[in-house]
Amino acid sequence: MKQGGRLTIPTELGMVDDTLNLIHELDADAIRDCDGTEMPQQLKHCGAKIYATYYTTRKDNAWAEANPDEVQQEYLSSDRCTADGESLTIELLRGFNPQELKVNDLDDPKTWWEVMDRTVGKPLDPSCWNYCAEDGTVTLESIPYHVYTVSFLAFLIWDPVHMYNFITNDWKDDPHQCTLDVRQPKTQAHVIEKLERFCQEHPEVDVIRFTTFFHQFTLTFDDQKREKYVEWFGYSASVSPYILKQFEQWAGYPFRPEYIVDQGYFNSLFRQPSKQFRDFIEFQQIEVCKLAKKLVDIVHGYGKEAMMFLGDHWIGTEPYGKYFEGIGLDAVVGSVGSGVTMRMISDIKGVKYTEGRLLPYFFPDVFCEGGDPIGEARQNWLQARRAILRSPLDRIGYGGYLHLAEEWPGFISTIQQVVGEFREIHEKTGDTKSNTAPFKVAILNSWGHIRSWMNNQVHHSIYHREIYSYVGVIECLSGMPFDVEFIDFQDVRDGLDPDIRVIINAGDRDTSWSGGDSWLDPEITSAIRKFVHDGGGFIGVGEPTAVQHQGAFFQLRDVLGVDEEVGYSLSTDKYNVCRPEHFLMEDLNGKPNFGEGMKGIYAYGDHYQILAQDGEYTQMAVNEYGHGRGVYLAGLPYSPENCRLLLRSIYYAAHREADMKEYYVTNCNTEIAAYESAGVAAVINNTSETEKTDVVLHGSFRETLELKPGEMRWISIR
Amino acid sequence: MKQGGRLTIPTELGMVDDTLNLIHELDADAIRDCDGTEMPQQLKHCGAKIYATYYTTRKDNAWAEANPDEVQQEYLSSDRCTADGESLTIELLRGFNPQELKVNDLDDPKTWWEVMDRTVGKPLDPSCWNYCAEDGTVTLESIPYHVYTVSFLAFLIWDPVHMYNFITNDWKDDPHQCTLDVRQPKTQAHVIEKLERFCQEHPEVDVIRFTTFFHQFTLTFDDQKREKYVEWFGYSASVSPYILKQFEQWAGYPFRPEYIVDQGYFNSLFRQPSKQFRDFIEFQQIEVCKLAKKLVDIVHGYGKEAMMFLGDHWIGTEPYGKYFEGIGLDAVVGSVGSGVTMRMISDIKGVKYTEGRLLPYFFPDVFCEGGDPIGEARQNWLQARRAILRSPLDRIGYGGYLHLAEEWPGFISTIQQVVGEFREIHEKTGDTKSNTAPFKVAILNSWGHIRSWMNNQVHHSIYHREIYSYVGVIECLSGMPFDVEFIDFQDVRDGLDPDIRVIINAGDRDTSWSGGDSWLDPEITSAIRKFVHDGGGFIGVGEPTAVQHQGAFFQLRDVLGVDEEVGYSLSTDKYNVCRPEHFLMEDLNGKPNFGEGMKGIYAYGDHYQILAQDGEYTQMAVNEYGHGRGVYLAGLPYSPENCRLLLRSIYYAAHREADMKEYYVTNCNTEIAAYESAGVAAVINNTSETEKTDVVLHGSFRETLELKPGEMRWISIR
Repeated sequence: MKQGGRLTIPTELGMVDDTLNLIHELDADAIRDCDGTEMPQQLKHCGAKIYATYYTTRKDNAWAEANPDEVQQEYLSSDRCTADGESLTIELLRGFNPQELKVNDLDDPKTWWEVMDRTVGKPLDPSCWNYCAEDGTVTLESIPYHVYTVSFLAFLIWDPVHMYNFITNDWKDDPHQCTLDVRQPKTQAHVIEKLERFCQEHPEVDVIRFTTFFHQFTLTFDDQKREKYVEWFGYSASVSPYILKQFEQWAGYPFRPEYIVDQGYFNSLFRQPSKQFRDFIEFQQIEVCKLAKKLVDIVHGYGKEAMMFLGDHWIGTEPYGKYFEGIGLDAVVGSVGSGVTMRMISDIKGVKYTEGRLLPYFFPDVFCEGGDPIGEARQNWLQARRAILRSPLDRIGYGGYLHLAEEWPGFISTIQQVVGEFREIHEKTGDTKSNTAPFKVAILNSWGHIRSWMNNQVHHSIYHREIYSYVGVIECLSGMPFDVEFIDFQDVRDGLDPDIRVIINAGDRDTSWSGGDSWLDPEITSAIRKFVHDGGGFIGVGEPTAVQHQGAFFQLRDVLGVDEEVGYSLSTDKYNVCRPEHFLMEDLNGKPNFGEGMKGIYAYGDHYQILAQDGEYTQMAVNEYGHGRGVYLAGLPYSPENCRLLLRSIYYAAHREADMKEYYVTNCNTEIAAYESAGVAAVINNTSETEKTDVVLHGSFRETLELKPGEMRWISIR
Repeated sequence: MKQGGRLTIPTELGMVDDTLNLIHELDADAIRDCDGTEMPQQLKHCGAKIYATYYTTRKDNAWAEANPDEVQQEYLSSDRCTADGESLTIELLRGFNPQELKVNDLDDPKTWWEVMDRTVGKPLDPSCWNYCAEDGTVTLESIPYHVYTVSFLAFLIWDPVHMYNFITNDWKDDPHQCTLDVRQPKTQAHVIEKLERFCQEHPEVDVIRFTTFFHQFTLTFDDQKREKYVEWFGYSASVSPYILKQFEQWAGYPFRPEYIVDQGYFNSLFRQPSKQFRDFIEFQQIEVCKLAKKLVDIVHGYGKEAMMFLGDHWIGTEPYGKYFEGIGLDAVVGSVGSGVTMRMISDIKGVKYTEGRLLPYFFPDVFCEGGDPIGEARQNWLQARRAILRSPLDRIGYGGYLHLAEEWPGFISTIQQVVGEFREIHEKTGDTKSNTAPFKVAILNSWGHIRSWMNNQVHHSIYHREIYSYVGVIECLSGMPFDVEFIDFQDVRDGLDPDIRVIINAGDRDTSWSGGDSWLDPEITSAIRKFVHDGGGFIGVGEPTAVQHQGAFFQLRDVLGVDEEVGYSLSTDKYNVCRPEHFLMEDLNGKPNFGEGMKGIYAYGDHYQILAQDGEYTQMAVNEYGHGRGVYLAGLPYSPENCRLLLRSIYYAAHREADMKEYYVTNCNTEIAAYESAGVAAVINNTSETEKTDVVLHGSFRETLELKPGEMRWISIR
C-alpha cells in the first residue's frame, strides 16, 4: 500500500472510511490532522504514517490565564496623530482589535515604550508623557502641528492564525486561543514538559509536525476583524522585555522600540535593513534555533520524526540562515503557492526531506459556490511542476477538511493526476539533478541568501500590484535550467563566486531589493562594473541600482545602457529609437508584457539597443559593456513567454547564446528539463491548450511533439 | 489709421505694398523687422511706429574675430566616462557641435576647469590630469571603474538662436553669427558706442526692440545639429572668468565649475536650487540689469522707447526678480504659446506696456505642406484669450516672414478676427480689472515669485510627458478668476500673506516644484498645517510634499488625506473605496483626465473621501482637516473640463463654495469673466463646437446663451 507513497492527506473525526478509501485510491502513505480537526482513534493503526500537528504556542488557554505575563507580546505603533495644541492624547489601540491585542502595562511603559515626535524623528523624554490605564491613552506635551506616535507593547491575547482560521471558517464557539511566549522560563519548562507527555501518550504518532515553533509572523487585525498589517517575514511579535534584555546583553547596546517599530514600517523587507534589525534577527535565530533543538531532541528521543511547518510561528527559524541546520529537524513542510514558494521549501538544506502542501487548502473559502478548487489545483500544479523538475520536493500533501474535498465532484481525480505526475518525476529521473547552464545566476539585493526565494514579496504568493512585475523574475527562474544564488552586497565586497556569470538586480528605487544607497559604495559599483567588463552579464529589472547621485539615477547606467528621467535632465534631448530585432526577441509572439512597466526610462551611451518602448520611454534594452553585457527590463511578471524572455536574456547577458540550445524547445509555452545521467527529459506544456513544439538536443533538431493541455511528456535524450 | 492699433506686424524687403495694405486692413500701428529680414526703406515714414530688432550680442563677427577672448562662454560637461584602468582619456567636445562650440584654452584650464570623479563626487587634484590642446582631450589618473567627467569652458562661436533659425529656415550662405560677451570691458564699450551710433543713424526708429540683452538661455546642439540640451531658464552660457572673478568677490567664496555644471544637470529648474546657484542668479541679475539700464538710458536719450524681447538672451534680466524694474524699460514683448506664457508677459511689473507675439511665427516650418497655420492661430488665441481676459496684454503682434502669411489663403482674415476680439476686450472693459475671488491662491514651490508662470516647465510651451500633467495647473489658472501668487518656502517661514486662502503644491518627488526636502523643515510643515487647520485649503497635485521621512512619504499626508506607497507599507492593508458624489464632480462629464496620473496613491486617515481611482489607487480625494480642507489630484493637464475641476477644487478647499456662483456659467466648455466697474462680462466658448450654457449672476440664473464655436459674447451684468 505504501508503494506509491510520497503523499500526505488530511483526515478528521467521522471520516474514517473515507480516509481509508482515499489512502487506497491515492496511494497515500501519511495522514494528518489540521487546525480545527482531530485524528480519529480508528486510524491510528491504519498503516499510513501518522502526523500530529503540534502547537507549542497555543491551545493552552489555562496556562495563559495563569501566566498572563508570559503571553506573547508584539510591538505596535499607535496612529500618527497631529497635535493642534500643546497637549495631545493618543488612544493606543485605536484601529486595532481588542479581541486580539491588549496593552501591556505590566512592564513599565516608561522603560519599554517610546513616544516619538515623527516631525523631528526623536523620542520624547519619558517625563513629557503619561499613560492612563483606564482609557488606554497616552497624553503628551506636544509642539503644535508636530506628528506623534506611541510605540508600545501589547499582549497577543488571540493567536493570529487561530483568529484567521476562526474568521475564515466562521467558527462560533471555539474559545479564542491565546499565544504563549515559549521563550520565557515558566512557559518554556511547561512546554517542554507537555511535549514529553504528548510523546509518551501518543506512541502511534510517527511525525510531530510543529506548527510551528515560537513566534508568529506579524498578522494584526483591525477593529472590523479585517487584516490590518500582514508581514510574513515580520519579527514584531517576537518580543518581550525578557527577550529584549537578553538582546541588549548580546548586542552590547541598549534596545530601542524604534528598532522594531521602524517608523511604523516594522522592518518590512522592502526597507534597507538597519544594523540593529539585522542584529535582532541574528540574535533571535540563535535563541529560537537553540530552543527548537531542545524540542526536536525530545521528539527524537521517542523515536519520532520532527517536522516543521514553514509558516505561522516560523519567525526566527530562518531556513536559509546560519542556525537552522542546528535544529536537527527531519523535515520541513510548507505551502506551495507557486514555483517560488515551492523552491523556498525544496531548496532548504539541513533536513532529510521536504514536503509541499499543495493548494487549495480544503477550507470553505474555496470549496464553496463560486469557488473553483479543481481549477486552483490544476493551476497550482502547473506552476509548481516546472519548479519541482528543477529542485524536487520529496513529498507532497494537502491540508484542511477532508469532507470538503471528498464531496466536490471531480476533485479527487484531479489530485490523483497531480500525485501521479509527481511520483513520475521521481521515478523517471531516479532523483538525479536536472541539467543546468554551465554558470550560475545570482540575484543581488540587500538581503541575499537568507531571503532565498523570498525576495520582492510581502506575504508568500500574495498578489500586489507593486510586486508582481518583480516576483515574476524568480517565479520564472524557479523552473528554469539555472543554478540560482541569492547574494547581498557584502557578498560582492567579499568577492563574487567565480561560477556566477549573470547578476540580476530587480526592484523599485529605495528598496532593499534594488539596494538603494548600497549603490553609493564605490567598492560595489566598481566590482560589478569589473565583473561585467570582464565578460559577465548584469540584468536590471524596474529600477536597478537606483539612487540619485552625481548626475545619475541608475548608478550602473553605463552598464545597463539606460537611466531614468527623474525630472533633472528633461532639458537633455533624447533620441531613442526602438530596434526590436534581436536574439532576445526570437520565439516571442509580439511585445513582451512588462507588467506595471516603468516610466521615464531612456537609453544612454553608445552601445545600447532598445528592444521595446512605451511611447518614447524604453521598456527593454541591451547594452554592450567591455566584454560583457547589460540587459534592462521594465518588469517581468510571470508568464510562459516571459520565462523564455528571461532565458534568452540570461544566455545573452552571459555571452553564452550557443549553450542555450543544449536542451531546448522552440515553443514558449513549453519547457524542457533534461536529466543527463538518467538519460531522460521532461517536456512540459505550461498552458491549458494543446501545444506543438520542436525539441532541440545538443543544438540539433530532434523531433516535433504535440502536447495535450498541461501535459508532461518524457523523452529519451540518449 | 491708428484708431484700432495695439498691433505690430512684421515686414521685410520687397513687401512694401503688401505691408501698407496689411497695416490698413488690420489697423496695425507698428511694424517690425525680424531675424533674417530687413525693414524696407520705403516704410520708414508710413505712419506706423517702427520697431527695430536690436542685437547686442551678435551680428558683429568682425568684432568677435578681433576679440576672440570676449566671445561668450559656456560651461560644458564632457560625457560621463568610465575608466577601465588607471588612466582615462576624455574627448571634451564629443557629442557637441564644433560649429557651435570651441574649447576655451585661453583661460587656464587648471584654474577654470574641473575633472570630477562622479563615483565619489569629488574633483581631482589638478596635478592628476592634463589637457591636450591638439586633440581636445583630457587625460587623467583614474581609479578603475570610477566614472569621470570634465567640466570645461567653451566659446559660443555660433549664436544658438542664429543657429536654430539657420537650421529651421534652411539658410545656406549666411555666415554663422558669433555671440559676444557684452559684459566684458572692450565689448561693453563697443556695444555702447554702436548703440549710440545706431540711434543717431536711425531717427525713424521709434522702438528699439532688444533681442535681447547679453546672455542666451542654454541651447546646445549635438554633432548632428540636433538639439542636445535646451533650458530656457539656463544660466550656463552666462559665464566667463571675467564674470566669475567678480562673482567671487561679490559672494565672498571661491567659485567652482560645479556650481554651474551641477552634476551635469546644469541647474535645471527641477533641481532643488543650491545656495551657490541662487547666489549666482542674484549676482547676474544685479550686473545684467545695471548694464541693461545703461543701454536703455541711451535709447531714451534719443527719445526712443526701449523694449525687451522675453526670450533668447534674456538670462539675468529676470522680469520677476528684484532688479528688473530698475532697467527702466518701456515695454516687454514675448511669445504667447499658451495662457501661461501670456501671463508670464502680461503680469510683468515695471514696464509701461506689454506686447504678446502670437503664434504661429511666420516661419516655413508651419507655413508649409501639412502645416496648419490657421488652426494654430485659432488654438493659440483660444488659449491666450481666457488668460488675456484676466490680465490683458496691452498689445499683440506677429513675427517672421510677412510673405508667408500673406500668401496663405484665409490666414489674414483669421488674424483680423483675433485682433478684433483683442481690441474688444480693451474697449468693453475700459481696462478695468476682471472680478476675482475674495481670496488669493498661492503656488508653493522652491522658486516662488521669481518663477511666476514659469514653474514645472523646461522650455516655455514645450510639451514633455513628464510635465503636462502639472503645467495644466497654471494653464488652467491663467484664465481663472483668481489672484495668483507664486511663493517659496522662505515666504512660508516669513509668514503667509493673510489674503492667501488656498495653497497649491504640484510636482514630482525630489523636484523644486514639489519642494523635496524643504518639507523636512518642521517650521514649514507646522505653518502649513496651522494654515489649513485654521480654515485654509491645500491642494496637492502629483507628489505634493513628498520626501521620505519618519514613516511618511507625503509629509502632509494628514492634510491631504493621501500618501504614496513606496513599497514600505505594502504590509499594511488599505481599504480604499471610491465615493465620487461630491461638489468637485458637479458639472463634469465622467471621470476627469489626470494625464499621466500617479501610481500607488492611497487614502489615509479618518476624514477623506476618494473621488476617483485607478484600480485600487487613488487619483483624486478630498480631506477635512480642522477647519480647513485638503484636495489631492493625481495630475491636471489643461482642458476646459479640468479648469472647472480646479475652480471647484479651489472654492471647495477655501470653504467658499457659495462664492463660486457670483459669476458663473454652467457649461464646463465655457467661462465667464466679469468686470464689475464696467458692468459687463465676457462669456467665452473655449471649444470649436457650438455650446449652450446657463449664465448665473450673484447666485441666480440670468439667461441661457448659445455660443458659436470659439465665440466671445459680451453681456451686461448691471
